[in-house]
Amino acid sequence: MSVFDPHFLILFHKSPLRRTNLLTTIATVPSLRYQINDIIMTLKQDAVAAVGEFFGTLLFIFLALGGVQATLSSDSNSINGPTPPQILGVAFSVGFSLLISVWIFAPISGGVLNPAVLLALILTRNISLVKGGLYLFAELAGATVGAGLLDAVTPGPLLGVNALGREITPFQATVLEAICTSILVLSVLFLAVEKSKTNVLAPIGIGFAVFVANLIATPWTGTGINPARSFGAAAVTGNFTPDHWVFWIAPDDLAPEPISPPVSKGGITPTPLETVEIGK
Amino acid sequence: MSVFDPHFLILFHKSPLRRTNLLTTIATVPSLRYQINDIIMTLKQDAVAAVGEFFGTLLFIFLALGGVQATLSSDSNSINGPTPPQILGVAFSVGFSLLISVWIFAPISGGVLNPAVLLALILTRNISLVKGGLYLFAELAGATVGAGLLDAVTPGPLLGVNALGREITPFQATVLEAICTSILVLSVLFLAVEKSKTNVLAPIGIGFAVFVANLIATPWTGTGINPARSFGAAAVTGNFTPDHWVFWIAPDDLAPEPISPPVSKGGITPTPLETVEIGK
Amino acid sequence: MSVFDPHFLILFHKSPLRRTNLLTTIATVPSLRYQINDIIMTLKQDAVAAVGEFFGTLLFIFLALGGVQATLSSDSNSINGPTPPQILGVAFSVGFSLLISVWIFAPISGGVLNPAVLLALILTRNISLVKGGLYLFAELAGATVGAGLLDAVTPGPLLGVNALGREITPFQATVLEAICTSILVLSVLFLAVEKSKTNVLAPIGIGFAVFVANLIATPWTGTGINPARSFGAAAVTGNFTPDHWVFWIAPDDLAPEPISPPVSKGGITPTPLETVEIGK
Amino acid sequence: MSVFDPHFLILFHKSPLRRTNLLTTIATVPSLRYQINDIIMTLKQDAVAAVGEFFGTLLFIFLALGGVQATLSSDSNSINGPTPPQILGVAFSVGFSLLISVWIFAPISGGVLNPAVLLALILTRNISLVKGGLYLFAELAGATVGAGLLDAVTPGPLLGVNALGREITPFQATVLEAICTSILVLSVLFLAVEKSKTNVLAPIGIGFAVFVANLIATPWTGTGINPARSFGAAAVTGNFTPDHWVFWIAPDDLAPEPISPPVSKGGITPTPLETVEIGK
Repeated sequence: MSVFDPHFLILFHKSPLRRTNLLTTIATVPSLRYQINDIIMTLKQDAVAAVGEFFGTLLFIFLALGGVQATLSSDSNSINGPTPPQILGVAFSVGFSLLISVWIFAPISGGVLNPAVLLALILTRNISLVKGGLYLFAELAGATVGAGLLDAVTPGPLLGVNALGREITPFQATVLEAICTSILVLSVLFLAVEKSKTNVLAPIGIGFAVFVANLIATPWTGTGINPARSFGAAAVTGNFTPDHWVFWIAPDDLAPEPISPPVSKGGITPTPLETVEIGK
Repeated sequence: MSVFDPHFLILFHKSPLRRTNLLTTIATVPSLRYQINDIIMTLKQDAVAAVGEFFGTLLFIFLALGGVQATLSSDSNSINGPTPPQILGVAFSVGFSLLISVWIFAPISGGVLNPAVLLALILTRNISLVKGGLYLFAELAGATVGAGLLDAVTPGPLLGVNALGREITPFQATVLEAICTSILVLSVLFLAVEKSKTNVLAPIGIGFAVFVANLIATPWTGTGINPARSFGAAAVTGNFTPDHWVFWIAPDDLAPEPISPPVSKGGITPTPLETVEIGK
Repeated sequence: MSVFDPHFLILFHKSPLRRTNLLTTIATVPSLRYQINDIIMTLKQDAVAAVGEFFGTLLFIFLALGGVQATLSSDSNSINGPTPPQILGVAFSVGFSLLISVWIFAPISGGVLNPAVLLALILTRNISLVKGGLYLFAELAGATVGAGLLDAVTPGPLLGVNALGREITPFQATVLEAICTSILVLSVLFLAVEKSKTNVLAPIGIGFAVFVANLIATPWTGTGINPARSFGAAAVTGNFTPDHWVFWIAPDDLAPEPISPPVSKGGITPTPLETVEIGK
Repeated sequence: MSVFDPHFLILFHKSPLRRTNLLTTIATVPSLRYQINDIIMTLKQDAVAAVGEFFGTLLFIFLALGGVQATLSSDSNSINGPTPPQILGVAFSVGFSLLISVWIFAPISGGVLNPAVLLALILTRNISLVKGGLYLFAELAGATVGAGLLDAVTPGPLLGVNALGREITPFQATVLEAICTSILVLSVLFLAVEKSKTNVLAPIGIGFAVFVANLIATPWTGTGINPARSFGAAAVTGNFTPDHWVFWIAPDDLAPEPISPPVSKGGITPTPLETVEIGK
């Protein structure tokens, strides 16, 4: 039975992590015993969800880096960086792997699959700090196992390590990565978190955002925008480049403080976004 | 009148294979005669659906291998495997051919079109063993006729035979194919079988999953993930490579036992999956 | 004011061509005068719709052949037919031009834009013979004007003429074109005509079907599957190849007789197709 | 805190610019004081929306030109214009950047992001003249800052300047750009402005329209169809080519007069467009 036997994954999808009811219970039932029970139950649900997140990140990174491996190792003409068809191959691989992974894992763990997105969801109070910690560990472990598994089953060294191209400075790379991450974080917050009629299409929009980001940054940095992806490839190859920190700083400086009420659960009730109404 | 005259196909779409009412009837009407009638009626419906499955697989394999043929025969620079544009061409051809074939044939036969997906649906009790047997035969026959028809109408030998690249071991190829199949099987179970708001988009998600799988595995194995596709191309060319077994073992070892209650019809009532609700 | 000023197009979208009420009226009100009025009114509506169809086909052919022109004239390495990136460029251009043209013109004229699809809709009694005749003329005229306009504004000779490659026989080409057209006709009938929850997604599915067809047939025939497209390019260049008849016979032999009740308006009431329910 | 911190953007999404209620108020409450208050309030809302439009255009242009930069600078084989893979890369970059930017910014500012689309929305009375003026300034400023930021963080000179290829005349380029813009304007009016069941899919359709336009015009003009995009790249590089006017005239001659009632807010009540009903 392989780890991707749906048998495993289905175990997790019954933990929808709704803490709202629990918190209501805590507020109205003063018994300490119930409170402790609730905390333990929440923790257990979070842990189960984190196992789902582990498998989701594992599968996503295996697929995303798998397409990068296939595309980059299939042509020797890439002296000064990837060629246009290779950039397209990388972008389709990473973008559409995320698209389908988010779609499948959304009901299991929320399909975060990325510590930068995780930070944004913690800051907007959509994910608790405790669960965030479990998820961070799950994502880094999943990405490392996914990259390692891919390295084991494909010929040649693993090629998808993020590194700065010769011509780009660390500062330039940080800004580039930061803006490319912003389109991903914004698409998660506006397409998936905010309630709207287009929520059912969110995985497609989020996947397209990652596709676009990879079209832009691949020749210069290999496109990080996901510290788990950068960490996984570096950990498996042992190739932590001197600029590896760029791939941690850049994505996460985007959401440096609690994001304002509309997309958070606490505070002011969010104005529900309406679907595409141009100029009205 | 060609076999793809919609005239033919429409014959099948009135057999929606709902056995639920029949089983209810059997349980409440004790007459053996009715039971036998019901069994015969079910068998007849299954047979009609299997003919639809035959045509669906025929069309899918003709289209998928047609794009592979076009892409691989249009460039001679493919000494050490397919070039990046060829990998993209193969992935778009197979992925989007499946996307549209599943979409059209879903109301006719369920649009399974793949013995590995079929096995997962049998194990989750979404398809009966008897119907599964008919479908397996229909898929292998459809794939063979589809590949044969393509070979007959395009110049040069048929190019889409699955085989291991020089650098990959059978064990590596088996794991690679198994994980690439898992994204397809998971997308079928979570996007199409589990009831959710995104069900209408399922053919698009399933097609994208196959697109991603083909981006990854094409340079190393030509991408099987569908024993009917591998069998059809091998049968038409007579080229059953020594490693042909990989393309039967790899996809099917993913669902080696009955998959757990949530996606099965019997057992515990499935918790309905909710659409994309990140971190709530 | 250019012909694509939305001003023009919007004139047509108030003629939704519903004859059902009119026919009911004719059946119940015996007055000949009302009948004649109704017939004239229907004819007027059909004529207005046909003008919309003219502009829709004009725009579609301009865009589709525009991408073909751009892709084929941007590389000289195409000695033995188009290269894989050129095939991809052609397929995206034709497929996605149709996708967006059908989406926009569906509420104006139905967005048929293709005599082969038109024939299928006439045979399934979704379009009357009289309107069909007007549409055929509108499509051929629109395609010719669209191709001519493109030829006038892009450098070099028009490149998108359909012709048989050196290695393919007329019979092979006819079967290939026929099957490639079938995926288009089936997607129109099953995704757009049959009522289902996925109808809103029909233009996307139909566009993807044309994309796939172009991936397959472009190296061998340039991909016709639309007699208006083949005629328009041939008329503008004056290059009616000896095999031009293939591009008329192949698409249309798919629906050689009235298609059976389920998708026709008369006869047996169609069983409404249900959305993607795999194996149930 | 970077400018793309969602913190900023969320500030704007509570100004949905509905003036209908305000106008009703003005009509029924004769007090001048209220009227002045309302005008000021509307102006304030418009200004807030225009700031959102600024950031939307900034992000869109950064991403769109970022992919153009990546694709064009990754291959030296582009002697006589971009190669087919480069055309594909440009089209995917610009088209899908717009797709996701429109999707995210639609609830913030309407996601216009283009002065040609803005003009069409003003002429159809979907955007007031005052707001239109603010938006025009916001779009030009956003595009210039976006292009400048991209230039600062990527190696080499900015490559995405619109200019006429050697073989095309200004008149030809104007017609080509005009028709390519028309598919964008029509998709905005028919998919997003007109109320229909497919409105939720509008950003996808609009993005595909821009993708198609870029497939067609990139070898000849670099594809403008958006004066803000043409202006931004020219302003940053200082390279206002002698034919720069083409990229202002061509997109805007498409909607030279108030577009007729169906898509305007005043006048005759629009007939609601129905979803894809072919030939009925």
